[in-house]
Amino acid sequence: MSKVPSRGFRDDEFAARLAAIQARMETHAIAALLLTTESDIFYFTGFLSQFWQSPTRPWFVVIPASGRPIAVIPEIGVNAMASEFITDIRSWSSPCASDDGVSLLAETLLEVMAQSQSCTVGLNKGRETHIRMPLNDFESLMERLSSSESDLKIADATPHIQAVRMLKSEAEIDKIRYVAHCVSEVFEGLFDFAEIGMSDADLFRRFTIECLNAGVDTVSYLVGGAGQHGYDDIISPPSGRRLSAEDVLIFDTGCTFDGYFCDFDRNYGFGGVNDLAKKAHHSVWQATEAGLAAAVPGNTCAQVFSAMHEVLLNAGALGETVGRYGHGLGIQLTEPPSFTAWEHTILREGMVMTLEPGMVYAPGKMIVHEENIVIRHEGPELLSRRAPPELPIKL
Amino acid sequence: MSKVPSRGFRDDEFAARLAAIQARMETHAIAALLLTTESDIFYFTGFLSQFWQSPTRPWFVVIPASGRPIAVIPEIGVNAMASEFITDIRSWSSPCASDDGVSLLAETLLEVMAQSQSCTVGLNKGRETHIRMPLNDFESLMERLSSSESDLKIADATPHIQAVRMLKSEAEIDKIRYVAHCVSEVFEGLFDFAEIGMSDADLFRRFTIECLNAGVDTVSYLVGGAGQHGYDDIISPPSGRRLSAEDVLIFDTGCTFDGYFCDFDRNYGFGGVNDLAKKAHHSVWQATEAGLAAAVPGNTCAQVFSAMHEVLLNAGALGETVGRYGHGLGIQLTEPPSFTAWEHTILREGMVMTLEPGMVYAPGKMIVHEENIVIRHEGPELLSRRAPPELPIKL
Repeated sequence: MSKVPSRGFRDDEFAARLAAIQARMETHAIAALLLTTESDIFYFTGFLSQFWQSPTRPWFVVIPASGRPIAVIPEIGVNAMASEFITDIRSWSSPCASDDGVSLLAETLLEVMAQSQSCTVGLNKGRETHIRMPLNDFESLMERLSSSESDLKIADATPHIQAVRMLKSEAEIDKIRYVAHCVSEVFEGLFDFAEIGMSDADLFRRFTIECLNAGVDTVSYLVGGAGQHGYDDIISPPSGRRLSAEDVLIFDTGCTFDGYFCDFDRNYGFGGVNDLAKKAHHSVWQATEAGLAAAVPGNTCAQVFSAMHEVLLNAGALGETVGRYGHGLGIQLTEPPSFTAWEHTILREGMVMTLEPGMVYAPGKMIVHEENIVIRHEGPELLSRRAPPELPIKL
Repeated sequence: MSKVPSRGFRDDEFAARLAAIQARMETHAIAALLLTTESDIFYFTGFLSQFWQSPTRPWFVVIPASGRPIAVIPEIGVNAMASEFITDIRSWSSPCASDDGVSLLAETLLEVMAQSQSCTVGLNKGRETHIRMPLNDFESLMERLSSSESDLKIADATPHIQAVRMLKSEAEIDKIRYVAHCVSEVFEGLFDFAEIGMSDADLFRRFTIECLNAGVDTVSYLVGGAGQHGYDDIISPPSGRRLSAEDVLIFDTGCTFDGYFCDFDRNYGFGGVNDLAKKAHHSVWQATEAGLAAAVPGNTCAQVFSAMHEVLLNAGALGETVGRYGHGLGIQLTEPPSFTAWEHTILREGMVMTLEPGMVYAPGKMIVHEENIVIRHEGPELLSRRAPPELPIKL
């Protein structure tokens, strides 16, 4: 087992992230960047809390063209937000009857814009994003800003934020590597606790406990499925079904350490699984080999997709339902970019990605396989321990 | 321990929910209701998946003025969504380069509106909600709808959806009662595994495992804090700090069973905790007694708030930072309504609520206490097992 990484980051990590986004803000003449979601706020401030699961209160961070981020948050979060790096914290008592942070946020944005030549506010409008505040409040914010600033422009900052977040530091990679190693241990020992006859609810519970004992902080995401000689669904919770002879079982998990995710799966056979399922497993393993060979700096995501797709087509894939063969990984279970035919983002050193080829190999039977990698000059570094080429079978 | 409730719901449960929202849609002349978030879609379809943690793909459900809900979802979800109750499922391959479900959703909404005399689309715009789709896509959807339907109106459906979801069925209450009982067992046995000298990370991990062994599906939300004679933050993850003599420790957890949450906390003292902290614990316990007495059908949330607030003022509260003394509970960790001075929602039988009085009792020292209840004709039924009146102390 690898050494447990230290929690949190040094201030120079946050300073580097801030410099990277402010360089892009300058290029695109963005006076203020408004962040509303858990992952963006964690990334730029280090604020980590499960409290985001409560939808009651909005949380905001404003990044000015120069200077540190400003937090505009409910009072309940002030102590948890305060750090060496985040010192300008403006708060209100939330929930609030009539103005849940909207006027405080508007004042802050106008103050930041007044320090800039630009009247452009950047926010996430693009793919894989949403605005985490009530639409009524968002409309009210826009009205307040435009009534005070007649030249107000709203820019989609999604590409800028995503470009910065895609490139992971070694400190970030250490956390992902650690959690991926913990989960690799559990996957490799699965036959020690998974038995024919167990209910899937018990199997999920036991898998979760094994991950916690291996050192992860949370088993934030755990899905799985099992079926005779193959499964047809990989996003469901336990149904109460019992593991049976001839089942193929998949577990796909996103565990976290200090806010950073791994995300990979493993497949297992129980009893006499048929040759079609075994062959399908080997095909997705081979597709991953092709993905590993193609995942080098300078290649596009589409090129990596094509390398995997060719293997699966040759293996007789009937189609797929996931929509891609992998994705970025970090402080979200899935992050941009995606390995699709149309994603032309160029791979760069430091990107952490999943390779996740999958296919339907018979009507109602699918298989998905996944590994976690970081793009390196000399070829990808595996963060998950490589799955075996042949489907492991417990007889 | 109570009997494990069955998973899922009978179709008549979903039929009743649909009838309740369609009655309100008729009153307010809403032709189609658009849902975009995990909790609303789970509530009206039964679709339960941790896959919502991936922000990549949007998911939509449209509720027509009459007839069953229509799912407009990525292909990856079709098998998991299909049920006896949900049969009209429209899907696309997602993620998609240029049109991630927007045109399919627009077509579906227009088709549903064409069956109605109304041109009003309802969606969540209000308190505690957000729209879970990219803002660019939302703007594009609005343009498509308004270009096809010149009389288009957008109505805030938040009050209607919240009013329906607030009233829990006995089948829903059974799930919350079960998960609350599991967690009560763990809280009551905490001194068996919590020791001075343990790191908070180890304590969180051990607490999580105990909850899983007690029968919960997930420990979705676990926060805590400890400090000398009191704590100052209740929303943070482990910091690495070790539990020390004279600490007051709080754990606050939202565990789930079959998609339903409990949400309550417990406080513990280790070694020689001072009298101020002990007195503060007793005061929040007494405030909860006042809340229990006031939590009857016909009273407003503000009345329950006032009953608790008076006890805390008399106990010398310096203030509070949580912003309320409890909230609704169900398929989200926190749901409307809130126990605040300004919330005039009337309590009705079947509402599941938390009573959560809290106060700052010395500079930098706060205490929060929480129980889960269901509003009953004869007075509240406790779903969590009542905390002891005096702070439990491990010497």
